[in-house]
Amino acid sequence: MLKDRFIADIIASKESLVGGRVRVCGWAYRIRDLGRLKFILVRDRSGVIQATVKRGESPEDALRAAEDLKLESVVCVEGELRQAPTREGVEVKVERLEVLSTPVEPLPLEVEGSEKASLPTRLKYRWLDIRNPMVSAIFELEAMVAKVFRDYYWSQGFVEIFTPKIVAAGTESGAEVFPVVYFDKTAFLAQSPQFYKQFAVIAGLERVFEIGPVFRAEPHHTSRHLNEYHSLDIEVGFIESYNDVMNYVEGFMRAIVRMLEEDGRRVLELYGVELPRIPASGIPKIPLRKAYEILEEKYGKKVEYGEDLDSEGERLMGAYAGEELDSDFVFIVEYPWKVRPFYTMRKDDEPSWTYSFDLLYRGLEIVTGGQREHRYHRLLENLRDKGLDAESFQFYLDFFKHGAPPHGGAGMGLERIVMQTLKLENIREARMLPRDTERITP
Amino acid sequence: MLKDRFIADIIASKESLVGGRVRVCGWAYRIRDLGRLKFILVRDRSGVIQATVKRGESPEDALRAAEDLKLESVVCVEGELRQAPTREGVEVKVERLEVLSTPVEPLPLEVEGSEKASLPTRLKYRWLDIRNPMVSAIFELEAMVAKVFRDYYWSQGFVEIFTPKIVAAGTESGAEVFPVVYFDKTAFLAQSPQFYKQFAVIAGLERVFEIGPVFRAEPHHTSRHLNEYHSLDIEVGFIESYNDVMNYVEGFMRAIVRMLEEDGRRVLELYGVELPRIPASGIPKIPLRKAYEILEEKYGKKVEYGEDLDSEGERLMGAYAGEELDSDFVFIVEYPWKVRPFYTMRKDDEPSWTYSFDLLYRGLEIVTGGQREHRYHRLLENLRDKGLDAESFQFYLDFFKHGAPPHGGAGMGLERIVMQTLKLENIREARMLPRDTERITP
Repeated sequence: MLKDRFIADIIASKESLVGGRVRVCGWAYRIRDLGRLKFILVRDRSGVIQATVKRGESPEDALRAAEDLKLESVVCVEGELRQAPTREGVEVKVERLEVLSTPVEPLPLEVEGSEKASLPTRLKYRWLDIRNPMVSAIFELEAMVAKVFRDYYWSQGFVEIFTPKIVAAGTESGAEVFPVVYFDKTAFLAQSPQFYKQFAVIAGLERVFEIGPVFRAEPHHTSRHLNEYHSLDIEVGFIESYNDVMNYVEGFMRAIVRMLEEDGRRVLELYGVELPRIPASGIPKIPLRKAYEILEEKYGKKVEYGEDLDSEGERLMGAYAGEELDSDFVFIVEYPWKVRPFYTMRKDDEPSWTYSFDLLYRGLEIVTGGQREHRYHRLLENLRDKGLDAESFQFYLDFFKHGAPPHGGAGMGLERIVMQTLKLENIREARMLPRDTERITP
Repeated sequence: MLKDRFIADIIASKESLVGGRVRVCGWAYRIRDLGRLKFILVRDRSGVIQATVKRGESPEDALRAAEDLKLESVVCVEGELRQAPTREGVEVKVERLEVLSTPVEPLPLEVEGSEKASLPTRLKYRWLDIRNPMVSAIFELEAMVAKVFRDYYWSQGFVEIFTPKIVAAGTESGAEVFPVVYFDKTAFLAQSPQFYKQFAVIAGLERVFEIGPVFRAEPHHTSRHLNEYHSLDIEVGFIESYNDVMNYVEGFMRAIVRMLEEDGRRVLELYGVELPRIPASGIPKIPLRKAYEILEEKYGKKVEYGEDLDSEGERLMGAYAGEELDSDFVFIVEYPWKVRPFYTMRKDDEPSWTYSFDLLYRGLEIVTGGQREHRYHRLLENLRDKGLDAESFQFYLDFFKHGAPPHGGAGMGLERIVMQTLKLENIREARMLPRDTERITP
């Protein structure tokens, strides 16, 4: 390797390294040329450090290389680490400067402060935008959230599964799927791993999780939707009720908050946001029918009885939870049958309502889940009741013919969790390479 | 939850649990009816345990439920855990038997011994096949391999990325992509995250990994190919040479062997296979041009100079490494430029050959990797040399315009690693729900 450590590691060990020789590789982030003295701020994924080239101190070829250096060139510098009045308290006295790569065209976007450019420009030159430490921090957080997800569910006895993304039928509704030309067959991109995570539970794996891409052919363009995103999915067999599923969701949310407390302080500060709050008594649960009342009485917002919340309703319920319940999270439970998919289990005593929930995080839905109908004949009834053709779901119905345990699960949006944690304005900021109605590149 | 622990946990703690009451939930795996005495073998993901229903000892309703019980019904049994002459040394004296789900149709495939049925039948009734502990063990191993992958690269300073699967151009060659109807655009399913893992390195994340689905529209039907599989990908910036990449690949292989040693003994025994061998001196590296000689001299197999190895050549080189070098793994290095993709870096001194490698595991290619061309003008030349249209790769070329570090990486087939570890005959056995020219369901 051309580098044996990251800049942050050098700075963290500066006490023991000062006076010794170090080697730093990264990009030329800032260059200050004072003639005889040149300061190069070298940036890598972990941080920045000043490299100082000085006539009479640095060799001739390093001086010449520094002379011609362009911003965002890839460099390795070597030399003594010494104390200096920089933010890091140290600098590298350059004894060797190698330029590994030089831009062949002027930069179309300045890395420093790129977050202030327009989002379309940032997404167009995303490889420059992400070099900005403000932006790469988003993706490092995203990786941490994924890690916390797997570690938490692994610790709870879940098995990771890898389900097909090429499928024969949509999960949710026929209209919002992308067709795939699959040899001589008609196939679609999976809108969610719903059918196959249920499959895995019924196939005896009992508790499963998956992180994978999902595809939604929704033509509308909002700041909260992507046409391709990563979904964090769980499915659990042998539940007593959908409260068991909510417990597993809450466990994960608590694990995220712990991670943010321990390792996320830097990114929270960078974005000026507070640690999300979960009451010690647990994430509050509010039945949707109660939410109708709260919205009307407290916010003068009328939601038709039996209808879903719109995004304003979710935002207001998020505000309510934050102000009245001291929680950045709130479960809304028992959605109407008519707004939930056919595989949802209906309430025994009130079949117009379901054992289902959404989790709102700072007023945005980040999780949808519930108990699934595992009884074959009930599933058939559900399909009929939705006016769906049992024939096209027969491959799914077959799973339920030979012993299926009661089960439930949830799907969570990775980018939405990150977006709400950092209070980003647009979900595209939390997706490295978003796909929407306008974008299939870069 | 209806169950608070897995059967294996009960058996592992049997000393302290015997004499107390336990609750077990799972599937009725085997039923032996001796009239007054009925033995139900209950199976969950972790193991099996005998539940004994006896007239005069168990209540009437449990007796009746046992009378009608069908194989693969989902049950919960409760009662005293007592010593018994079973394989596990214990049994549950049934005081309560709940049947949660009963098959609505006869079983089209017997769970026990399902591995002896034909593969098409197994794949057709995969939810029954996977209940077979022989089969579920494959998928538990697969999850472990994925975990080892992430843990290892995480420990080496890699960041997880989530790249788009909907792309504007194929990575490898135009012919083998699945077209997607993406609004009013022509798009494709990604054959690999190649372009975007390079993107992430150039965007400053430096070392990245991803586990995700990849899609290959290859119409041929072999026991080693899938049209959709999960790829384990890494990409590393600031490499000195492609040996750095091979070191990272070897580190992962060693981590797999360690995991198998520590937690994989059971599955290795189940399949009657030995722990894979890696010599202490490292995985051997054999230049392809040397492999030509070995194949001809030792096995009488002639490979045209400058051509790729076919599957027989790989198998023989695997045998050679196993017999002569005491290794189940062997790197074949320096492939010809003409058989490698345009983004491969050519050797400085021999431009007909490349800084590339394959890793063979027991004679099957499980990893492909190498150093990538990071110099913009060289990339253009490479495209021209391959007769490819630079225009359609412009979105990719743009990444290289503003400072790109030397980098390389590798793509590894998750299912192939599992297949070779257990010496499975067909890669479909290592994929929960394979997609091939014939299958888009279940």
